[in-house]
Amino acid sequence: MILVLKHGTTRDKVDALCELLEGKYRIQTNPIFGSEQTVVGLVGDTSRVPERDVAGLDEVDRVVKVQEPYKRANRKFHPEDTVVRVRGVEIGGKRVVMCAGPCSVESRDQIAGIAAAVKDAGASLLRGGAFKPRTSPYAFQGLKAEGLHYLKEARDATGLPVVSEITNPAQMDLFEEYADMIQVGARNMQNFELLKEVGRSRLPVLLKRGFSNSVQELLMSAEYILSEGNPNVVLCERGIRTFETATRNTLDLSAIPVLKARTHLPVFVDPSHAAGVAAYVEPLALAAVAVGADGLEIEVHDCPKKALSDGPQQLLPEQFAALVAKARGIAAAIGREL
Amino acid sequence: MILVLKHGTTRDKVDALCELLEGKYRIQTNPIFGSEQTVVGLVGDTSRVPERDVAGLDEVDRVVKVQEPYKRANRKFHPEDTVVRVRGVEIGGKRVVMCAGPCSVESRDQIAGIAAAVKDAGASLLRGGAFKPRTSPYAFQGLKAEGLHYLKEARDATGLPVVSEITNPAQMDLFEEYADMIQVGARNMQNFELLKEVGRSRLPVLLKRGFSNSVQELLMSAEYILSEGNPNVVLCERGIRTFETATRNTLDLSAIPVLKARTHLPVFVDPSHAAGVAAYVEPLALAAVAVGADGLEIEVHDCPKKALSDGPQQLLPEQFAALVAKARGIAAAIGREL
Amino acid sequence: MILVLKHGTTRDKVDALCELLEGKYRIQTNPIFGSEQTVVGLVGDTSRVPERDVAGLDEVDRVVKVQEPYKRANRKFHPEDTVVRVRGVEIGGKRVVMCAGPCSVESRDQIAGIAAAVKDAGASLLRGGAFKPRTSPYAFQGLKAEGLHYLKEARDATGLPVVSEITNPAQMDLFEEYADMIQVGARNMQNFELLKEVGRSRLPVLLKRGFSNSVQELLMSAEYILSEGNPNVVLCERGIRTFETATRNTLDLSAIPVLKARTHLPVFVDPSHAAGVAAYVEPLALAAVAVGADGLEIEVHDCPKKALSDGPQQLLPEQFAALVAKARGIAAAIGREL
Amino acid sequence: MILVLKHGTTRDKVDALCELLEGKYRIQTNPIFGSEQTVVGLVGDTSRVPERDVAGLDEVDRVVKVQEPYKRANRKFHPEDTVVRVRGVEIGGKRVVMCAGPCSVESRDQIAGIAAAVKDAGASLLRGGAFKPRTSPYAFQGLKAEGLHYLKEARDATGLPVVSEITNPAQMDLFEEYADMIQVGARNMQNFELLKEVGRSRLPVLLKRGFSNSVQELLMSAEYILSEGNPNVVLCERGIRTFETATRNTLDLSAIPVLKARTHLPVFVDPSHAAGVAAYVEPLALAAVAVGADGLEIEVHDCPKKALSDGPQQLLPEQFAALVAKARGIAAAIGREL
Repeated sequence: MILVLKHGTTRDKVDALCELLEGKYRIQTNPIFGSEQTVVGLVGDTSRVPERDVAGLDEVDRVVKVQEPYKRANRKFHPEDTVVRVRGVEIGGKRVVMCAGPCSVESRDQIAGIAAAVKDAGASLLRGGAFKPRTSPYAFQGLKAEGLHYLKEARDATGLPVVSEITNPAQMDLFEEYADMIQVGARNMQNFELLKEVGRSRLPVLLKRGFSNSVQELLMSAEYILSEGNPNVVLCERGIRTFETATRNTLDLSAIPVLKARTHLPVFVDPSHAAGVAAYVEPLALAAVAVGADGLEIEVHDCPKKALSDGPQQLLPEQFAALVAKARGIAAAIGREL
Repeated sequence: MILVLKHGTTRDKVDALCELLEGKYRIQTNPIFGSEQTVVGLVGDTSRVPERDVAGLDEVDRVVKVQEPYKRANRKFHPEDTVVRVRGVEIGGKRVVMCAGPCSVESRDQIAGIAAAVKDAGASLLRGGAFKPRTSPYAFQGLKAEGLHYLKEARDATGLPVVSEITNPAQMDLFEEYADMIQVGARNMQNFELLKEVGRSRLPVLLKRGFSNSVQELLMSAEYILSEGNPNVVLCERGIRTFETATRNTLDLSAIPVLKARTHLPVFVDPSHAAGVAAYVEPLALAAVAVGADGLEIEVHDCPKKALSDGPQQLLPEQFAALVAKARGIAAAIGREL
Repeated sequence: MILVLKHGTTRDKVDALCELLEGKYRIQTNPIFGSEQTVVGLVGDTSRVPERDVAGLDEVDRVVKVQEPYKRANRKFHPEDTVVRVRGVEIGGKRVVMCAGPCSVESRDQIAGIAAAVKDAGASLLRGGAFKPRTSPYAFQGLKAEGLHYLKEARDATGLPVVSEITNPAQMDLFEEYADMIQVGARNMQNFELLKEVGRSRLPVLLKRGFSNSVQELLMSAEYILSEGNPNVVLCERGIRTFETATRNTLDLSAIPVLKARTHLPVFVDPSHAAGVAAYVEPLALAAVAVGADGLEIEVHDCPKKALSDGPQQLLPEQFAALVAKARGIAAAIGREL
Repeated sequence: MILVLKHGTTRDKVDALCELLEGKYRIQTNPIFGSEQTVVGLVGDTSRVPERDVAGLDEVDRVVKVQEPYKRANRKFHPEDTVVRVRGVEIGGKRVVMCAGPCSVESRDQIAGIAAAVKDAGASLLRGGAFKPRTSPYAFQGLKAEGLHYLKEARDATGLPVVSEITNPAQMDLFEEYADMIQVGARNMQNFELLKEVGRSRLPVLLKRGFSNSVQELLMSAEYILSEGNPNVVLCERGIRTFETATRNTLDLSAIPVLKARTHLPVFVDPSHAAGVAAYVEPLALAAVAVGADGLEIEVHDCPKKALSDGPQQLLPEQFAALVAKARGIAAAIGREL
């Protein structure tokens, strides 16, 4: 941590500041007196020094953090890639993993049919929403517990492990019983109560980036889960909110190499929610594989026109199968499998 | 609702589409055949027609919504201003209301002292965080239930109704017992489970705008609370996330006249979180009064340098008193009181 | 064009409005009376009706444009792909084109050496900045005319057509003499005087998207050039400004399929400026090919550490060669060549 | 300037790096060896050290700039407020200055009439666009030189100094003859060729913030003008581009106290372009005065419905007069005049 002092801070005040800091936080201080400005480097365990507190000291103009605030998620302290296992499916290894399924579970038949179709097309994981966070209170809110039951039946029939989104800490027991992987949705990425709850589970977590959260905030949210004891976290980029309205969100594919450099955790990409338009899903999916994603989450529906939610962005099973075939070629071109 | 059809849609297809829509949704259709493009106007109760579903139909290029998706929060159907009462304090009337207090309740003495100070300075409501949503799992998380107890003691001593933030539906009973107004924080503005929970209460709610949520989304979140039966909602602008980093967030004061035009609910402004720097709080607070806010939420601490959270943006009680004095002049200049 | 009228507009006022519009703009009007709101569809040549003017009429709540405001750039009126030829190099066909070179031309030897190296590595076009738009007046501003001379020498030696950025309409004669393709930089995308000037030339134009401009604004700027008579426009996505700071800008790869749907013009991607970090350039370049770009613009320098501008994002020639080899595999996987 | 070195950089490499830097840039180096990371402070004239160059060195993780890159615009080196005089009108003193007029000069009569009206209402400066930068090539592009003539006539008749926007360096002679203050529009804030040109003039410059430019970039653009020798620069906030679409742009009023802290130059606010809707102009104008603006630029038209550009955001003269009356009360409340 480095403190940049205000213009014109006298030598005496610098000395007094250093004494205060050394006493309060048990760290060493190293002032550097420049021609225009003085900076003070802090050495030792600066994790004990709250950034905004020292930023508020009279002499301090601003604080520069040298170390990342995330530890368990940090590749510096854990250089090798983490592989997360979801009932035998490995995420984060050489193979790019396809997770597919409808936005919402709508009926037993619907999810059973789609599960079989996406399996045939090359998916290894089945997604489906049971508890739906919707912007409008008047929109379809999901089948809730019943939806989770149907998902489990579909898993039992196809062998595909199931992923579904949790929206309330009180749902945790249900998910422990019926789901193989818990999704924390974009709107809940900073629902810290929920993060702590899933952190106390051993179920793998698919943590989606909030549509206005930075890469660093995503890693801090992963840190919440890891620090509670659950090491099985997969991150997922799904588009950020920008001024551009041609797509629902702007898929930030740069985040994938950035995350790969900063963390050992596997990284997924969800092109369906980012695009919001089925026609853009395939090119973005191929780009996601090319940029280095460990897996994709794709919305597939047997009849998007009748879907109870997010119809326009869902692919037909045959469109998904075509996407998988092309993605396989991309994976091969960069030395991976799919 | 208006459907803009794809370029080149034949007359036959337009007819078939109209028939389908009339049958499925029991509405009337009005096609307009233009030189380059055809549009279809839908008349009747289009709240039954899911936008994204019709957007996914083959012939449809895009859907234009004519009506706002919020009803109970909409000024069109409720032209007069709503006044929310918090233990006798009226929000939304002629008087501009000041809500002040520390970011976090840190101890019984701290909140008692600040409560007395902000009352003297002109505050009508006391704020203080007990459950703190923090980006880092390693940061101070609040005194929790103990913090709420101290707040209630401070209210009993000063008479100032207290406002505090809820972060989990499971905390509802505690808030019913100890708080006079429940704050839903920016990060939880789309935590729909929490919104439904506070909607089932009768306690007034201070709903803060998410830092990346649009004005319309804020109104939809208010609609969640109103639709569950709780009419006592006060909205609060607190800064949005933009590319600019000179302030913590960009305070969107344009949102105040926009909200005033669209909804009957009262609107607060929180300049402290938006600015993130104490020196900018006063000018932004004055601007907020000038632009038409019904109240301000200001962070005040007896010793910001020692604050356990958000020190740099908190004002000293004497700074807050000076702010109130100036704000009173601004209020008078626009025909209000404070 | 559709006018959504204000809530409560009476039938008489609707009639008067329609009469006014029909008289003033010689178009037909089609009112649709809904239960809550009335809309008026305008049929005819609505390009004569200024959107913001009618939006300002008393009865009008808002205006919905049904047709895109760009005509010459619009794929609807020009369905087949445009191929732009730069001294024999075809952009927009089956082959993905590589354009490479240093951020700035720094000396005769530098550009000669890099030109030879990028040609060997697989580039078909040579880029190099002579007039440099820099944020700081104290930064290196380019070799100017001298830089263009060196570029031309490098082209004569290698056969690679050269691309360089124009920053002032007064430079046009120089570019006509020395350059094979004119680049309009991101900061000048809405410098309409410059757009008109390059529109009067026959030289192909590489039009970069402004870092805060929408896809539609990019197409409107292309329309400026096309409407002056120059049909040889290649668009280029190079990253947009968002809240994320982990990369210099956020590369908006979704813009490529969006542009491909809306326009017949070829589309390039510049991953170097978007990333701002050399290590992220290769994965983003591969993603750009996978998503459907017709070409890439990559910054290559023989010694990035000594570069006079943008050192950190420039690749070494051998890194560029490795990138080209991998990109070739990606191109093959989607049925293209490189 | 501080270099944060990469994790694991050895002592030998740190020494070699320091030697290299001291030799190349003639500065002193101060390494601080921390437990996890090493930083190197650079002391001396670091304006000679290009940030991105050293950021590209192998051992360097990132560079932290301690000093602002703007000098002449910096309040640190010029603590007292600058007052800019436009034909006798003082900008930056105690009095808040009103600049008003139509978006575009449309005819001799129009500008003459509006000039008289805004003078009566309390304006001290007359604005009017002659060269109009428009997104669409098919939109009204302004009366050009003729418009400047009419402006000068209006000035001669009313005594109000005139402000108009320049769009091409080649127009400079015209502006020297006809205008009293040159406006550089938002889209040209980083048109560095234009900035240099107006920097060589002695005419005062009204420099508008680009809709996606940071406060620091605005100050760098001011630095371009100042460094060419023209000290008469007034900055103007006019809204930034964000995800919010309820207003045309998001007026960033926080920028006013930020600019006041960082620079000695006067600061205007243009609420008309930010809001894009006449009804929001007055509350935002009042807020701008309350937050500390030295002046306002307001669009006024005698018949907004017939305006050739930006009709919906222009006020009638009587609306402007009402605004001025209220703004006077706000100014008095903060100890200023108007």
